[in-house]
Amino acid sequence: MAGKIDARLAELGITLPTPMAPVANYVPYVITGNIVVISGQIPAVGGKVATTGKVGPGGLSAEEGAAQARQCFINVLSHLKIACGGDLDRVEQVIRLGGFIAAPAEFSQHALVMNGASNLAVEVFGDAGRHARTTVGVPSLPLDVPVEVEGMFRIA
Amino acid sequence: MAGKIDARLAELGITLPTPMAPVANYVPYVITGNIVVISGQIPAVGGKVATTGKVGPGGLSAEEGAAQARQCFINVLSHLKIACGGDLDRVEQVIRLGGFIAAPAEFSQHALVMNGASNLAVEVFGDAGRHARTTVGVPSLPLDVPVEVEGMFRIA
Amino acid sequence: MAGKIDARLAELGITLPTPMAPVANYVPYVITGNIVVISGQIPAVGGKVATTGKVGPGGLSAEEGAAQARQCFINVLSHLKIACGGDLDRVEQVIRLGGFIAAPAEFSQHALVMNGASNLAVEVFGDAGRHARTTVGVPSLPLDVPVEVEGMFRIA
Repeated sequence: MAGKIDARLAELGITLPTPMAPVANYVPYVITGNIVVISGQIPAVGGKVATTGKVGPGGLSAEEGAAQARQCFINVLSHLKIACGGDLDRVEQVIRLGGFIAAPAEFSQHALVMNGASNLAVEVFGDAGRHARTTVGVPSLPLDVPVEVEGMFRIA
Repeated sequence: MAGKIDARLAELGITLPTPMAPVANYVPYVITGNIVVISGQIPAVGGKVATTGKVGPGGLSAEEGAAQARQCFINVLSHLKIACGGDLDRVEQVIRLGGFIAAPAEFSQHALVMNGASNLAVEVFGDAGRHARTTVGVPSLPLDVPVEVEGMFRIA
Repeated sequence: MAGKIDARLAELGITLPTPMAPVANYVPYVITGNIVVISGQIPAVGGKVATTGKVGPGGLSAEEGAAQARQCFINVLSHLKIACGGDLDRVEQVIRLGGFIAAPAEFSQHALVMNGASNLAVEVFGDAGRHARTTVGVPSLPLDVPVEVEGMFRIA
């Protein structure tokens, strides 16, 4: 039953969580034509915010931030799978990821942090996981999480 | 003459403003295929910036911020109506809203603020108003406004 | 051999740089259907970060920031040209530009800064360069650059 991407996730030791309900009046994804737009995801684990604070001096290291970005992308995948009717093999292309890193003015390693999401996209989808990306710093994020990642995908 | 959505706006007591001209060299919307992309809107009232400052300690409350987000979405609608040739009944889906909340590092209630826009989208368009959404904090916005909202829509 | 847009760039005295490689594991652009999504570009010159810091009091002036936004858009164009197989005359519409201005909380002239990119879009593409736009402040950007610009285009 499991598809190629499900098998790849299993190889990576990743179990997709039950998708977290949005914290407000919106939906996790919208499909328009063959495009899936996924709402900004926070690095919740098991439906709960596990890590709060900022990345940078006095907060998380860039490597710790990257782990949070990876978790955001796992949550993106959990919604994407539902958008695909359960079949992630329908994903043709990761079009774009947007990464927002909560960090102070002196932080400059945003790219390292966002790589946590980008690397996983390529590990999971191979060449189809190579995406356009915009990464910026922000002073604060919903629920005081350190990273938020949104996504756009093309599906069959 | 008035369409279903115009009637709904009247029920809600909302009169769409004459759209505010962009404050710079760009246009309020672009249509590509059946997608309308609306430029980031500030919470101007009657073409004038009515409220400035930040949301959070020492500034606007989350509830006051939500009222500003609602006003941003009203301004989004005013441009969307023109993009639809005056007929908002052509709107098939609110695809995505992006919300930017001017707030300090310690702020964490961005979702409550952005609900001002999201709730109005659902009040106006019903199920078609349920959208993907990304909400983040920012240190500052154009003209020192507290909230900015951009939108993407599918039209018939 | 040179197309109309290449000739226009020459008139403007602009030589497109060899596109800078992404600073992380992603790609500069993705094409989906007739849409090109360009990753957020920093104002590198000759593949090197030439200017760092923030826009606003104690940093770059709004005019200096606008020059950085213009350079970001030149870098966007360098990737777009490759996405078009070398022929920028295939560009039918600049759909949307997103601008992120690294600036402190008290800054409010984001629009003036982003005009550096928007004005160049119209200088190069004429009416087809008139785009939707979202401009916000951020506390920090990758590699401490002052401005980042992303783009979405429709091509033939």
